Amino acid sequence: MGRLSDLFAPDTVAVIGATDREGAVGRAILENLQLEFDGEVVPINPNRDEILGLECYPAVECAPPVDLAVVVVPPPVVLESIEELGEAGTENVVVITAGFSETGSEGAEREQQLRELAEEYDLNVVGPNSLGIMSTPVGMNATFGPESATPGSISFMSQSGAFITAVLDWANEQGIGFRDVVSLGNKAVLDEGDFVRQWGEDPETDVVIGYLEGIDDGDDFVRAAREVTDETPIVLVKSGRTDAGAQAASSHTGAIAGSERAYEAGLEQAGVLRASSVQELFDYARALSGLPEPESDGVAVVTNAGGPGVLTTDAIGDSTLEMADFIDETIDRLGETMPDEANVYNPIDAIGDADVSRFADALEIALDDPNVGAAVVVSAPTAVLQYDKLAEVIIENREAYDKPVVACLMGGERARAAEEVLREFGIPNYFDPSRAIAGLDALARYRDVRERTFEDPPAFDVDRERAREILARAEGRDDNRLGVESMDLLEAYGIPTPDGEIVDDPERAREVAESIEGDVVMKIVSPDISHKSDIGGVKVGVPTDEVYDAYEDVVSRARNYQPDATIFGVQVQEMVDLEGTTETIVGMNRDPQFGPLLLFGLGGIFVEILEDTSVRVAPIDENEAAEMVEEIQAAPLLRGARGRDPADVDAVVETILRLSQLVTDFPAILELDVNPLVAGPDGVQAIDLRLTVDTANL
Amino acid sequence: MGRLSDLFAPDTVAVIGATDREGAVGRAILENLQLEFDGEVVPINPNRDEILGLECYPAVECAPPVDLAVVVVPPPVVLESIEELGEAGTENVVVITAGFSETGSEGAEREQQLRELAEEYDLNVVGPNSLGIMSTPVGMNATFGPESATPGSISFMSQSGAFITAVLDWANEQGIGFRDVVSLGNKAVLDEGDFVRQWGEDPETDVVIGYLEGIDDGDDFVRAAREVTDETPIVLVKSGRTDAGAQAASSHTGAIAGSERAYEAGLEQAGVLRASSVQELFDYARALSGLPEPESDGVAVVTNAGGPGVLTTDAIGDSTLEMADFIDETIDRLGETMPDEANVYNPIDAIGDADVSRFADALEIALDDPNVGAAVVVSAPTAVLQYDKLAEVIIENREAYDKPVVACLMGGERARAAEEVLREFGIPNYFDPSRAIAGLDALARYRDVRERTFEDPPAFDVDRERAREILARAEGRDDNRLGVESMDLLEAYGIPTPDGEIVDDPERAREVAESIEGDVVMKIVSPDISHKSDIGGVKVGVPTDEVYDAYEDVVSRARNYQPDATIFGVQVQEMVDLEGTTETIVGMNRDPQFGPLLLFGLGGIFVEILEDTSVRVAPIDENEAAEMVEEIQAAPLLRGARGRDPADVDAVVETILRLSQLVTDFPAILELDVNPLVAGPDGVQAIDLRLTVDTANL
Repeated sequence: MGRLSDLFAPDTVAVIGATDREGAVGRAILENLQLEFDGEVVPINPNRDEILGLECYPAVECAPPVDLAVVVVPPPVVLESIEELGEAGTENVVVITAGFSETGSEGAEREQQLRELAEEYDLNVVGPNSLGIMSTPVGMNATFGPESATPGSISFMSQSGAFITAVLDWANEQGIGFRDVVSLGNKAVLDEGDFVRQWGEDPETDVVIGYLEGIDDGDDFVRAAREVTDETPIVLVKSGRTDAGAQAASSHTGAIAGSERAYEAGLEQAGVLRASSVQELFDYARALSGLPEPESDGVAVVTNAGGPGVLTTDAIGDSTLEMADFIDETIDRLGETMPDEANVYNPIDAIGDADVSRFADALEIALDDPNVGAAVVVSAPTAVLQYDKLAEVIIENREAYDKPVVACLMGGERARAAEEVLREFGIPNYFDPSRAIAGLDALARYRDVRERTFEDPPAFDVDRERAREILARAEGRDDNRLGVESMDLLEAYGIPTPDGEIVDDPERAREVAESIEGDVVMKIVSPDISHKSDIGGVKVGVPTDEVYDAYEDVVSRARNYQPDATIFGVQVQEMVDLEGTTETIVGMNRDPQFGPLLLFGLGGIFVEILEDTSVRVAPIDENEAAEMVEEIQAAPLLRGARGRDPADVDAVVETILRLSQLVTDFPAILELDVNPLVAGPDGVQAIDLRLTVDTANL
Repeated sequence: MGRLSDLFAPDTVAVIGATDREGAVGRAILENLQLEFDGEVVPINPNRDEILGLECYPAVECAPPVDLAVVVVPPPVVLESIEELGEAGTENVVVITAGFSETGSEGAEREQQLRELAEEYDLNVVGPNSLGIMSTPVGMNATFGPESATPGSISFMSQSGAFITAVLDWANEQGIGFRDVVSLGNKAVLDEGDFVRQWGEDPETDVVIGYLEGIDDGDDFVRAAREVTDETPIVLVKSGRTDAGAQAASSHTGAIAGSERAYEAGLEQAGVLRASSVQELFDYARALSGLPEPESDGVAVVTNAGGPGVLTTDAIGDSTLEMADFIDETIDRLGETMPDEANVYNPIDAIGDADVSRFADALEIALDDPNVGAAVVVSAPTAVLQYDKLAEVIIENREAYDKPVVACLMGGERARAAEEVLREFGIPNYFDPSRAIAGLDALARYRDVRERTFEDPPAFDVDRERAREILARAEGRDDNRLGVESMDLLEAYGIPTPDGEIVDDPERAREVAESIEGDVVMKIVSPDISHKSDIGGVKVGVPTDEVYDAYEDVVSRARNYQPDATIFGVQVQEMVDLEGTTETIVGMNRDPQFGPLLLFGLGGIFVEILEDTSVRVAPIDENEAAEMVEEIQAAPLLRGARGRDPADVDAVVETILRLSQLVTDFPAILELDVNPLVAGPDGVQAIDLRLTVDTANL
């Protein structure tokens, strides 16, 4: 593919299927291109010599060289057009035409052919089923939408064309400007990862925002986004969060929904800030596009209005930010400057008769405080306060101290002029204090994203070949499942398991028991019997001299229960001392978009009833594994709450990392559960295991 | 007090302290009163004959009869003015003047005197420290704020005057109208409960909204609100939700913060809908003021835009609403009417080329479905869709089917005209789908509030006199605490406790043990020893013949541990079989605003680490007690999750109700904890008890 930047800066744009028929998409695009585009617009239509005053060519091969072609011909001739473009050397194509994978199998096949042509001719293809693209630096509106973007530093992609038209009309009214806008359509060739990479390299894009219903290659997107978010924040609305929404999204785009928890984990690991609504998307984007990140979390609130000041304080309490704790000098300076009735502690209440100069004093003194990382100015309209002058004061101080400042000049009409002035200097004004704080919070969270460092996941010394052999045993098994008989898989990856062996005669059982200190646990090993305890298939605390009989008993009980059950034998295992330990669970599900999704939680009710779990997309580094343990609500139990001995959390973290390595090494492992992984003060032991293997993929 | 309705409909308003001095509050009020007020305005100022063209009187006694007086004289002369008003027969007074309880002890004393005068003369007094009041039906703006309210059906009270000015400017721009507006000020006389009652009786008030930082008499407010919310919804922003916010609120109003959990429980029990931001407050109010409540929770989504349709579906998934499940006939009718590419399942995607008539068909068919309780129309702007015509279609269908319909006609400028038309017919338009759904959700939640019925709390047959005697034992005790030695308190209220007795000699211990079947538990009973087990002060499973020695041993260990400890004796108690039981906790804290706050949770980590608790303000009825048990996350454990025998939940509920009765009967009980209350399949037993008693109040 050619450089993606060319897609947004063509000299010549052709419209394949241009027309002057009223209401036709091919006309709407041509009209939009004629609005402000700096370059040349070339209509292609074999039946016309001229359209809307532009010279029309019968085919792209007859036209001057075309940098970008917008294709609006009917579905059956799209592929032909693409081929012609490829032959003519056009590198960038936007396919507006619908009727591809979103319509069924015939369309899906057409889309596959489109994909192949794009590869053959090395084309950048947007769409099909796209509203088009825009790029304000060259004045290009190559969409059929009713609205153009105004210039700005936000680049915007959307999986829904309607979302773009709905947002642009509103954004223009709000004075929110864009750089590039892309309607992704069916993402047959170019997808969200490609545009994120492109905009990450574009120094003029301050923020990347997007509306997505699904991410096809989650793994690639995470890689792309991780790199980009070092320099450029990404804010996404990923819809289909709820079950109902996922179903609607899947019927809208035809995409497999994927699990919300995988998206949540994947996007978080990618450093993407996620917005849950259109409003939040732009509240974040407005702050991120114009302001620096705060160096610390302390926020100063400067207000003339006690009530709104309290509301702002609540919003800070709800966020990742905190109320700045002023140094004594700040309190003193405020005390000298403010009237007696003012509150000089944070929130600074300059009281109702505060004029602009009192606001200026308070804001300056607050921003000068080393404990203040950011500030918010919250005001109610009064007779003595000129909002336009207040805006200037905010701008001056924000620039003098190079700390982020957001405004919440409450009011309607009378706030508009000030809002415009502030906007020019990158300072968003929000009507609602909670939204102003959400904007600042986005800046702080983006700072945290930038400060993250990712280590390489540790590479433990494991016996990969042995693991492969063990996994291969699943071949031919019912549902390709492995169970406790494959605990040696964990051993191959260095995860502690109790001493023991699976044996298939009572004599050998006794021998194994003799080699183990103390009494043993004996369990029937059968892929067909899942509730082993219920049928008497488990014996705990068996002394060595009773092992022989216990073997016979366990096997006969299993046989009685299910005569045709496959019985691999009996596991004779060291008794693990559970006193003072905590049962944990480490699991993995393979998500269709993001791949191996690791899960951690405490055993029993914690996972099953309280749903107290943490998830990450593997592979993960040590920090991420530690976070998984830390972020469950019941984490204090592992750390030794209520008089327990603390568990060896490092060993839990290491086990999660080793399992991360295992599931990354073997994409053939579709599901895996170590349950329980018993964690005590002296380390961990995996007691039971279940996994499903795609043996064809080994 | 005179009728509060007179406050808002005076014929004559006097301004005590009127002036024409530029910038003076006394001038601002006079000017605002001259704007549109239907009645007579009477300035009172001994130094003027005329102010701003109005005849001025030296004192109220010289003026014509005054229905409402607005007082803006300096703090030291406010009381004198009030007295004069009282003598002159004026019944309604708004005190604008600040410098009362918000400024310290001198001010607090002045406020107390104000309160006494109000009582003496039977006056309705708003404030002091109020911005004033407005009432649009009579065109009265008796505030010194820069903005007047436009007429509407929302009545609005605020503890912050600045909040009113900030909101009004914005609301006027948004076309949101009000009926009465009150700045509550310090609430020396009239408080939120009074205005809620007044507006509950006012047929023209469709919604009551408020901004509050604290509710002084929570109990009274709950009673008032419960009655009012049968007919009129109440939406409140109660700030100071977070620790930081509570601190800021307390420094703003000088009020004691009270616990957020008490507010949460109290307001919920009162049927108040709580908003967390200004925007939410008005998003709710707009829906509640113009639309009927939905009869069922199923929502139909009608859209021309797939992406926004999915976002709307997500928002429904997040709410208490659900996507309506269309009956077959609806699907068939939509199938016949909509184009092939449309989605006829909910959300109905009428696709991008939908014109107004297609929207009309879809909306009509959807609203005709019996499974549809409400609908939302979500649209992106397109060339073929006229928003003003779409608004008309929405209005017609909303009225024809008498179901609530909200609009989300996305866009900026082009949505404004449609928005105005919709507003006239009570239909709110929201830019963001999530806000549109929040509006519908408020309607559904208000329907649930209306449908609630409160039974009288059950009156169990208890031995109140005996309980009083037991509580009296706390007198003279350290911190007025009672412990396990007072388990007979629970018995007096019919709560099961293990058999046993507290004895003070070993012989009696043996006798008690003999009267109990099986082994016993023995515990040292001392208010000075809290960790009884740690010092060997507890013995479990003591056979009868070892009880004598065990008594001596337990007492001597306690003596060794703390020679000067007060020892009440040793408790000899039946061994409670804990097998198959669950430990629960029932507690009570007395909240300064709301009174007895009951708490329920499972014992140990569930309360201490997972903070999985439910709370209610006592007294509660049976439904509320059952909800307390149901709403904890771990509730499935009591219902028999994971193969347990279900606990006797009815017995748990009954115990909560009996404790509710106990703490309601005795306001002297400041704190109480039954921990654990062991719940098993055959009932409950209270094992331990701690409480603190205000013996002076018995």
